[in-house]
Parts: sequence; structure tokens; C-alpha cells
Amino acid sequence: MGQAADGAVFRQRVMKSVQIHAFEMRSPDDTRALEQALEVGAIEGDEIVCILVKTEGNGLANDFTRALAEISLLSLLCRHLHLGRDDVEARISLICSGGTEGVLSPHMTVVCVSYQAGGTDVGSGPRLAFGHAHAQRVVHSGVGIDETAQRRAITAAVNQAMIKAGLYDHSAVHLVLVKAALPAGLEAGAQQQAKPALRAASALGVAVALAELSPEHLHDLSEVPRSAWSSRACVTAASDLACSEIVVFGNSPAWGGELVAGHTILADMLDSPSVARLLKQLGYDASPQLNAVDTAAVKAVVLKGEPPRSDIRGHRHTMWDDSDINALRHYRSAMGALLSGLLGCTRHYLSAGAEHQGPPGGANLCVIMQAPASPTHNAREP
Amino acid sequence: MGQAADGAVFRQRVMKSVQIHAFEMRSPDDTRALEQALEVGAIEGDEIVCILVKTEGNGLANDFTRALAEISLLSLLCRHLHLGRDDVEARISLICSGGTEGVLSPHMTVVCVSYQAGGTDVGSGPRLAFGHAHAQRVVHSGVGIDETAQRRAITAAVNQAMIKAGLYDHSAVHLVLVKAALPAGLEAGAQQQAKPALRAASALGVAVALAELSPEHLHDLSEVPRSAWSSRACVTAASDLACSEIVVFGNSPAWGGELVAGHTILADMLDSPSVARLLKQLGYDASPQLNAVDTAAVKAVVLKGEPPRSDIRGHRHTMWDDSDINALRHYRSAMGALLSGLLGCTRHYLSAGAEHQGPPGGANLCVIMQAPASPTHNAREP
Amino acid sequence: MGQAADGAVFRQRVMKSVQIHAFEMRSPDDTRALEQALEVGAIEGDEIVCILVKTEGNGLANDFTRALAEISLLSLLCRHLHLGRDDVEARISLICSGGTEGVLSPHMTVVCVSYQAGGTDVGSGPRLAFGHAHAQRVVHSGVGIDETAQRRAITAAVNQAMIKAGLYDHSAVHLVLVKAALPAGLEAGAQQQAKPALRAASALGVAVALAELSPEHLHDLSEVPRSAWSSRACVTAASDLACSEIVVFGNSPAWGGELVAGHTILADMLDSPSVARLLKQLGYDASPQLNAVDTAAVKAVVLKGEPPRSDIRGHRHTMWDDSDINALRHYRSAMGALLSGLLGCTRHYLSAGAEHQGPPGGANLCVIMQAPASPTHNAREP
Amino acid sequence: MGQAADGAVFRQRVMKSVQIHAFEMRSPDDTRALEQALEVGAIEGDEIVCILVKTEGNGLANDFTRALAEISLLSLLCRHLHLGRDDVEARISLICSGGTEGVLSPHMTVVCVSYQAGGTDVGSGPRLAFGHAHAQRVVHSGVGIDETAQRRAITAAVNQAMIKAGLYDHSAVHLVLVKAALPAGLEAGAQQQAKPALRAASALGVAVALAELSPEHLHDLSEVPRSAWSSRACVTAASDLACSEIVVFGNSPAWGGELVAGHTILADMLDSPSVARLLKQLGYDASPQLNAVDTAAVKAVVLKGEPPRSDIRGHRHTMWDDSDINALRHYRSAMGALLSGLLGCTRHYLSAGAEHQGPPGGANLCVIMQAPASPTHNAREP
Repeated sequence: MGQAADGAVFRQRVMKSVQIHAFEMRSPDDTRALEQALEVGAIEGDEIVCILVKTEGNGLANDFTRALAEISLLSLLCRHLHLGRDDVEARISLICSGGTEGVLSPHMTVVCVSYQAGGTDVGSGPRLAFGHAHAQRVVHSGVGIDETAQRRAITAAVNQAMIKAGLYDHSAVHLVLVKAALPAGLEAGAQQQAKPALRAASALGVAVALAELSPEHLHDLSEVPRSAWSSRACVTAASDLACSEIVVFGNSPAWGGELVAGHTILADMLDSPSVARLLKQLGYDASPQLNAVDTAAVKAVVLKGEPPRSDIRGHRHTMWDDSDINALRHYRSAMGALLSGLLGCTRHYLSAGAEHQGPPGGANLCVIMQAPASPTHNAREP
Repeated sequence: MGQAADGAVFRQRVMKSVQIHAFEMRSPDDTRALEQALEVGAIEGDEIVCILVKTEGNGLANDFTRALAEISLLSLLCRHLHLGRDDVEARISLICSGGTEGVLSPHMTVVCVSYQAGGTDVGSGPRLAFGHAHAQRVVHSGVGIDETAQRRAITAAVNQAMIKAGLYDHSAVHLVLVKAALPAGLEAGAQQQAKPALRAASALGVAVALAELSPEHLHDLSEVPRSAWSSRACVTAASDLACSEIVVFGNSPAWGGELVAGHTILADMLDSPSVARLLKQLGYDASPQLNAVDTAAVKAVVLKGEPPRSDIRGHRHTMWDDSDINALRHYRSAMGALLSGLLGCTRHYLSAGAEHQGPPGGANLCVIMQAPASPTHNAREP
Repeated sequence: MGQAADGAVFRQRVMKSVQIHAFEMRSPDDTRALEQALEVGAIEGDEIVCILVKTEGNGLANDFTRALAEISLLSLLCRHLHLGRDDVEARISLICSGGTEGVLSPHMTVVCVSYQAGGTDVGSGPRLAFGHAHAQRVVHSGVGIDETAQRRAITAAVNQAMIKAGLYDHSAVHLVLVKAALPAGLEAGAQQQAKPALRAASALGVAVALAELSPEHLHDLSEVPRSAWSSRACVTAASDLACSEIVVFGNSPAWGGELVAGHTILADMLDSPSVARLLKQLGYDASPQLNAVDTAAVKAVVLKGEPPRSDIRGHRHTMWDDSDINALRHYRSAMGALLSGLLGCTRHYLSAGAEHQGPPGGANLCVIMQAPASPTHNAREP
Repeated sequence: MGQAADGAVFRQRVMKSVQIHAFEMRSPDDTRALEQALEVGAIEGDEIVCILVKTEGNGLANDFTRALAEISLLSLLCRHLHLGRDDVEARISLICSGGTEGVLSPHMTVVCVSYQAGGTDVGSGPRLAFGHAHAQRVVHSGVGIDETAQRRAITAAVNQAMIKAGLYDHSAVHLVLVKAALPAGLEAGAQQQAKPALRAASALGVAVALAELSPEHLHDLSEVPRSAWSSRACVTAASDLACSEIVVFGNSPAWGGELVAGHTILADMLDSPSVARLLKQLGYDASPQLNAVDTAAVKAVVLKGEPPRSDIRGHRHTMWDDSDINALRHYRSAMGALLSGLLGCTRHYLSAGAEHQGPPGGANLCVIMQAPASPTHNAREP
């Protein structure tokens, strides 16, 4: 193919593409698998742009596995890239979420961007695009969150990340991850109280950026009803962060590679049909489960949701009534199994606590997969 | 139809049939829904033969919701049936299991046997059959379980219950519930230690009765490997019980009514395809979920399983490593969601802790549904 | 002594006296020890006026061990007293609290009132007095609590119970237990939300009755600061109760018997000196622990408190930051051990969740003990 | 004083002394207080010999707060001391224990050894001595622990640490901390299974070194009854450790400074009198609590114990029956409060899981305090 001089090949040479690698973690500080991949050259360190980590903590107030994973990864990356911590943090978005209840498996998902299109099925349609950005620093007053400033900073940063990714159309965006910066210097208790408002404002910032909500109607953000939500936001609050970070995934014809993203909404905690429809759109069949070959094509799964306040399809559940297990831990165990039953694997980035992210009691879901081979596509075209 | 004199109508007149009713429970002592059904005649009290209860406790050592549900139900039934407690217990099998983690809904499943075939699709094939029996009392020595005596008592009682149900062929049996009697007078700690051996011996008793294992190879039961298991046993240990109880469900041409049972094995915690295949056998399509009409046809779902000791499809899980949430609570939340995603409802009798019950790391599943209307059946036959 | 005709003996003949018996509970439905005491006549059933039960549940929203204990005790009492449930409930105050974390022991404390002064040290000072009353029924509107009506109903009922006990001076009252009736027909979630306001209004009702607060300053009860509190209130919220119940303990010269009560305030979670001072007032020495003989003189210990929102003596604690163990469970384990270390026994009625009950971060404590033998008293008098 | 030429002054000039500093930790990775102390010179970095850390994790299998504290402290110490990680680990014993249930406060206790006797009350008796040693590396076979090799390695290392501390008499030793190295390369599950045997063998190693047990009777260590125990061992198992580490505290006339150590045994979970007796020996009065001045004299408190398998003083407890809270978490909350009530502070190194460490159901306790001022001592001498 290299000899040909037509546009396709030219495009192939210079197109950026995203590669995604997942690695098992035997503990939150286990970075051996990534280290080995870096050593043998399976991954080029300077191509890493983002690492999503799912650790085995409780995913709640006193979950320190996220901090442990982050410090361990930063240590490895500084060493391998010969960079200082600030430089690594400026270059690579590290986003951690605790909680691998039920079948879920602790793992890290390493996102690389390279210019070697290697094997791209040129002309086969839009491919996975990636962009990230740091939001402008927001100075909150005391323990309260300046919700409007946070909302605006996030909206601006999402737009910036979209432009970096070459995603100029909202509908091409399939996932916006926000690592929202908590105000500095808060006590543990005050941090916990600030988190919902911070996440809510951030999610509304995404919704505005994706034209899901109009900023004109967003005056007092604490008054915005839960019925206003973004279909693609997934927000995590983090402390010890100078400013919020944004990661955007979408599909773009300007990108090469083998991956594509899609997203959907789960209307409630049993909404497996919506997941199956999304997989169908991506070219795969889960009725009820992907076959082993197709399971291997799954590269990343990100779900953000929360248990419903009321019944599930008319029947009472007890997630909020259990004083021994937090409702969000019930939730992750349940939704992790629902997704795993459909996808045939257990490595999902599943985050609970979903202010303005997805419908109430439902969820946002983004799946990134290998684009199916051409024959499948051809079969569907005349 | 009553005027005709052919066999079908004659059969309809005298055939026994099983009806199953599920009721929401707002708390473990909430029997109001059943009480109302008895009062308005929706259920005849003297037709009740078994009640399966799923309570919202932790399903572990200190789960007293089962005792509360039992005492509450006994109180209602004694009052309504004008019987003493012993008579109610002799007539009705009350089997409780704690744990409604995740989406699962606390509920009771009331099984009735009547002679009014009402609406039976005569000649349409075998229908749900029910039988129960009390096992011979086993006297254990001290804190230890006399495993062989327990095994034999269960085998005999299963055979007896099968005969009562008119199930003469092992393959027609789809579920054997055992409420195994713990030795009397044990301390709480000793009870906990005795439970695994009691459940194991009982499960092996079922396996022998169903010809899944040969009694000749069962000398020292504590030595029997986990690779020996019954595909239809679901054992619960209970204290304050004079002798173990057995409940058998199967399909028989001698029974009428509208219900049929089926069972399958889940090879691992992600084995949704096996569930879908079972539903297909029963005449329903879950790809990935039953439609709302078919969901209403689900009458009872009983799953018995346990988390695997090792990985799930090659990936690490943390259910056994979590010192704050017991592995079985993780399990029920996960499997409850997997089943609910397929079936479209959240009322399942899901029991964890599965010595010799189903494959290691997998599960036994029995589903009881309304037999599909004839057209569907016809459609598949020339 | 019976032959003498002086006032002391006359007083002895007709004085009422309180006896207190504690019984081990092997499970929340274990009433065997009480049953046996009734059978052998160690307790006269018609002398029972109150039973305090400490069950081994989590003491939180989904603790059904209280309901199980109550139904089990009612069943026994109905059977033994040949009374209907309503009559038993009208005569005997059953008050249950869940949570025996740490060293605490599940037990019931049975309070009897008799006219046989048996062994009373006549003329030795005021003795334990008991009174109880049902508050007027309060009709709350919807899910909200009518706090003022509840406050007033409790104040009136405390006064009534004091009069029944012959306690006309506020300072002679050492404990007021309130079993506050939740509005009927609330969902589990709504009940949980209603509890704090109900308990707060009830505690303020006690404070007014004991002249600790002036009713004039209590307009909007939800605005009353936490710095207003009763030193002797211990409130529990209960559902399925027609009206709130009040139990009062104090010391009165009109009562005979061998028991006396005292109370104190714990300023914080480490305030063992206040406990020791109270014991000293009662005639006992805990420096740091009662000796075995004196431990046997302890008849009932009731503590109501809550973890502090901020530090303990300048050092951070993590009770509120632990997402796996509820702060109140931490609290009961800690305070149970603090008390047990001083008293040398582990049967205490320790209740957490203390709106307007005791100082913030501190606790109310009432101890009922055998009055020390005269020599001790004489030793302190010239 | 420097001018005088007598022995006392000479002794003062060259005597080693131990200083102990405690620092609040706002999270397991919070090393700011220590960092500040190093920056202002309150602590000389090269005088640090040991840091005991009590983190706010669950103290059980999946407690990663210990790893986070360790990596954070190592990072600070490497930076401040300009040493590599191996050198820091060779010089400073870092021993972490998770679990600050109840009133306990997350903190670190930094032990320094200096040659500046500063303010030593010369001739006032033996003072706190410190020694540490690395045990010889033990190669275990597979998942099993070579218990005899571990026992011997620990015995030898304790002797070595004693010699380093100048403690030649067993009775002068008041605490032996062991950080026992788990076999390398074990899975999480296998690690958990190996821990009890490793801790048991290590504790027996201490017992032999302190002449509490005779090595002749220790053939098959797994057969040694629980009635054999060391009164001063406190063992923690750790992974990622090349060889086990030993820390010894005792009192020696060869050491100066202001601190002294003492130890005692708690016979059961209520044994506050033994604690008070120990404090009395050290010159302090806790009846029931140290006064504020004396509380400030407490420098370190180390307790190792476990919940009893049977009753506490004749009454049932439920620590082992609670399936939602691990018994060791109940234990730490209870014992932390018992100690805090006596000592008036909440910073204790309290470790649960006590194979052959202290009497069954009881505990080992070591307290390090400022030696009381001379008048007190004089008062006791003629």
C-alpha cells in the first residue's frame, strides 16, 4: 500500500489514531503490566495521553486506593518519561474511580495517540478521536462551590478539547470525562459536602458545551432540576488538583486507526436492550452476549449512573435502605454484572453518583470498540 | 367443553394444577398483600403448599429477617386457616432466603395447588408439578454433622416428594429445594460452622436422588470433590426445625394448569447465553431481554450459586478480598442484575453459598413461566 | 420486723418498689430466659411494667431485629398473661434498641413494680420510682412532623408519668425514655427522613417537662439550636405505634425497694471521670473499675449520645468519614467499651442518635444500682 | 553542669536518648506535619529510627492505606535525607497498621535517637532504649510458611536488636514489634491465608527470645496451643519486604532522656484495672483517667489483642457473629475507647489479630511516657 500515491495512502501516513490498551491490576499500586509494556515497546511512553483506572476501593469518601494508584502511576511515568510530576500531569490525564464490586475487575485503560496509522482501513468512515484540556482555574469562596464559574470553565474547556480532537460537531462526541478540581484546603467532611455541587455544575457545563442545554436557562445552578442532564458527561471530583481536566472521545473522519466510539442512555437499571442496540450500531450482536471474538474487540466501556430514588419497574428495591452497604456499592455491583453479561468481559469503568449525568435512575454509557471488518460493513450496503 | 365426554375434558376436570402468586413485601414482617389476597379470595388459604420468601437482610450469619418473615407468615396463616403452628408447618413449606442486594426486590412467592384446572390448554404438554416431603429426623452427634445420615435422609425424602408430585423420571425434575435442619441446641458460632457440611450433605442427597451421582462413590462425604454437584439442588440451612424439608418442582403430563418449569446451568457469573437458551426452550426470546408481555409470564426464578475462587474469564475479581462486604452479598447483587437484565423484572429467589450445587463458580437456575400460547407452539411445528 | 408497729414498718408494708432483672438473649427472638423466670415464679408476669431490649441488629434504618424481639416478647407475654396484644401493650412498655457493637451483650432488662417491699432498708432514703404514660395521639400532616404538637404531647405525657411515679420534683427524675410514634403509612425512606425531627421534638418535650427549657422560646422547633438539650431524655422512634410512650425513672421517698437511680452528662466521648463521679454519688468506687461485688449491684445502664462532628480533645477521628461502617455503629462500640471498662459488665442500653439529648458530641447517662448497704452510708455520716 | 567532671555529667554527654513525636494525619498520604517539623528543625531527619503509623483503613485484607502511607513517607524521607529508598528502609523502620475505628485518631509516631541528652534527669533510673534489626531472609516453599525457619530468624533478630539497644536482660524489654515479611509473589488470597501462620511463628520467635517459651518444646509450630504466648510481641505481616524487621523498646540505665516504657497484660477486653496498675508503676494515676497534664506525658501506646472466642465475663458478645462488620473492626473501636477513657487521649497504635500475642481474648499493652518529675519519685523513697 505504501507505494501507491493516491489520497487514501497520503491520508494514512499523517492521520492520528487512538490505541487503547487495558492492563490487569493486582492491587491499586500495581503498575507492573504497564511498566513491562513500556519496556518491551508495546507502548511508547510519549504516546500516552490518558489513563483511566478502576481501583478496588469502596469508591466513596474514604477510598484512598485512587490516591495510591495515582501516586504509583505518576512515579512510573516520571521515571520512564524522564519528566517531573507536573510535566507528566500536564501531558497525561490520569482519571481514577474506585469500586470494583461484583464481577468488575481492577484494571487500567491506557489511551495512546500515535501518527502511525498502522493497518487503518482507510476510507472506512470516522474513527475514534481524542482531545483533552485543562479548564481555567476556578476560585471558590470558602466551602461553597461557585457553580456558575465552574459551569463556564467546564463548558469552555470541553469546547477546547473538542477542537483539539478535531470534533466540530456535537453529535460526533460520545464521551466527556471531567476530573473536577475540588477547592483547595477543605477538610475531609467539607470535601464530601462540596462534591455533589461541583459534579453537578461540571455536568451542566458539559451539557451546555454539547448543546444539550441552553446556558440562558441556567441562572441558579442549584435550582436546576434533575430532569436536565447531559447524555455524555461522566464527572469525577478530585482533590489536590490545580484545575479541572477534560477528556473528550468522539468519532472523526480526520482520525485513522481501528477504533470507533458510540454512546447510549440507559433508561433504568434493567435497560439491557439499549446496550444491545448500541452494540448493533457499532456492528456487533449481543443477543444476549457478544461472542468471544467480538468481546476481544471491546476496548473501553464507561458507564455513569446511580440507583433510582423510587421503584424499579414497579418493584421496590432496598439499595437506599441498607445501612451496612452504601447504595453506590450496590449499584456498581449490579450494573457491572448487567454490562458484563452483555459484553462477555468484566473490565468496565463504571462510576456511580450521577448529578445531571444521564436520566435519573438511569445511566450514560459509552463503548469504544474495534471497527468491524469491512465485509460486515459491505454486507449492509448495496 | 364440559359437555363433551372425551378424555381431554375428563382430564381437565380432575387434574391438579399449580398457581403461583408473587407479593411485594415492604418489610420482612409485611404480610398485608397476602392477607388481602386471602381476604378477597384471590387465593384460597387451604390451597397454599409453599411460600418462598426473599427478605432484605444480609443473608448471612446474623440475618434475622428470615425469622421475622417466618413468624409473621405463620401468625397470618394460623389465624386465617384456624390451625395451630405445627399444623401450618406440616402443610405449608416456608422457605426464606435473605439478601436483596442491588436491583432485587423483597417479595414472597406463594405456591398453590388446586383442582380447578381453569383455562388449561388441555393436551398442550406436561405442566408444572409440585411435591413436598419432610425428611426423616437426623440425630447429629454434638457439633458435628452426621453427613451420611443427612445425605440418605435427603435422598429418601426427595424420592418421596417426587412420587407425591407424580414425577417418576429424574429428567422431569427441574428444582429441588431443601430446607435442611441444623442440629438443635447449637450456639450461633457452632451453627455457622455446621452449615456448610449440612448443605453439602443435603446437596449430595439431592444429586443421588436425581441419579446425578452414584451413592457407591460417596463414602466420606467431607472428601467428595467440588466437581461433584447436583444441577437442580438449592439448599438452605435453618435452625429450630425438627427435620429437613424438601420441595420438588418438575413438569408432568398428569398435571394441568398454565405453568411449566425449566432449568439450566450457568457455567460462570457471565453466562447469560445459558439463561437465554433456557428461556428459548420455554418458548420465550430474551435477546437481550423479554418484552413486557413475556416478563409478565415469569412466575418464579430460583438461582443458587457462588462467586468463583479464581478469575472470571481470565480477569481478577475482588469479591473474596473485600473485608467490608461479604462475597455472597457482592454475588447476589451481581447475579440479580444479570438475571433482571434478561428477564425484565427484579423478583428472583437468588441464594448464594452453593456447596455441590451447580458447577464451581457457576449456578443452578430454575425458571417457572406461563406456558406460551398455542400459536407460538404451532408456529414451530409443521 | 413485722411485729413492730412503728411507721417504718407500716411504710414497708404498703410501699411500692421496683425490681429489675436482666436476661441474656441468644438471638433477637430468644425469650426463653424470661419465660423460665415466669414459669418458676422468679418474676410475676403482672408486675412487669417495662422491658428494655438491646438487640444485635445494626441499630439503623434496616434493623429488623427490634421488630423480631417485640413480636417475640408480645407473643410470650400474651400467652403468659392471658391477654390480647393491645392489653399487653397498654400495660407494658416495650422499648427496643438495636446495636450491640464491640463488647456489648444482647439482653433484655425487665422492670417490675411490686408491693412487697421485701428487704427494703426502711428509712434509708429515696428509692427508685417508676411511672409510664401514653402521650396523646399526634396527627402529622403528610410526611412532615408536626413538631410543636409532638413536643406538647410529650411534655404533657412526661408530666403525667411523673405524677404516676410520685415524682413531683424535676430534680428527682433521672431518666425519661420516649418511644416516639412515627406517622402511620410512611414508606421506609420517608420514615428515615421523619425520624430526626420526631426525636428532636420529643427530646424538647422532655426538656420542657423537666424545666430544662422554657416553652416560650420554642416557636419554630426546627430552628432550635443543638445547644438546647435535655440531660435526661432518651428518645427512640418507632413505627406501627398509635401514640408515643413515656417511661420515667427517678428516686422518691414514697418508694421502697433496694434500687436507686442517678444520672450525669458526659461532656465528650472520653468523659469517664463523669461516670466515676456518678458512681461515687451512688456509693460506689470505679477507679478505674467497680469490683466484682459492686458490678453485681448494677441493675440498668442507659446511655444516649452521638459522635462529635469535630475533633475529640483536639484530635481528628474518622467515624463520620467511614463509608463502610456507619458512625453510630462506631459510636456504640466505643462507648460500650468505655462504660464496660468502668462498670465491669457489658449489658448496657446504649442508644445513638441524640438530637437535643445531652450535649453535642457528649451523652446522657443514667445508672440504676442497688443502694449500698448502710455501713457505707454511715461511714459518711457523723 | 558541663564543667563538672563526675561520672553523671560524663554519662550525660554521651548517653543516647529516645525522643518521640506524634503527628496528626489528615489522610494516609498526609506527611505535612512531619515535613514541617523537619523543615523547622524540630526533628533532625538523620535521628529518625522508626515511624509507627496508624492509618484510617479497615485494617484488613483490602486495606491499601498502609501502602499509601508508606509510599508517601518514603517519598518524603528520600527527599529530605537525600537517600535512595533502599537506604531509607535500611535505616528507618516504617511500621503501619490500619484501623482507627471509634475514637482512635490517625497519626504517626516518630521515634528519634539522639546523643543530646538535653534535660535528662541524670541518675534518675533506666530510660527508654531502642534497637532494631533486620531478620535473616527466610525462603518459604510455595504458599506455605516455613514456620520453624521464621521462628528462628525472628528469635535471632530480636536478640540482635536487644544487643543494639543495650538491653541484656529480658525483663527490661517492654515491646517487640515485628514487621514480618510475607513470601514474595503470592496472590492476594494466598497472602491472606499465609498471614496467620507467619504472625504466629513470628510471635513464638519473640517469646523464645524473651525466654517466655523454651525452643525445645516448639517442634511443629502449627501445633503450639494458643495458651503459649508472648507478653510483649506485636506482629504485623507485610508484603513487598525482603526480610522481616524487628523493633525493640525497653528501659536501660545506659540510656538517657526523659522517657520510660512499661508493659502489662490485659486479661480480657474489660481489663482497665491492669492498665491503671501499669500507669501507677510508671508514676501516674488513672482513676479513672489521667489528668490533662499527665495525658500530655503519654508518648506512645501500643496494644495488640483480639476479641475472645467465647463470652466476656459470662455474657455473650456478637463481634464474631456480625457478617457486616469484621470482628477486628469491632475490637479496635472498643479497645480504643477503653484505653482512651483511661489515658485521656486517642492516639494509640492498636493492632488486632493476635496469634500467640497476649492471652487469648486479652491483649499486650506497652505504654511509653515521660518519666515523672523527681519529687514523685522521691516521695516513694525514704
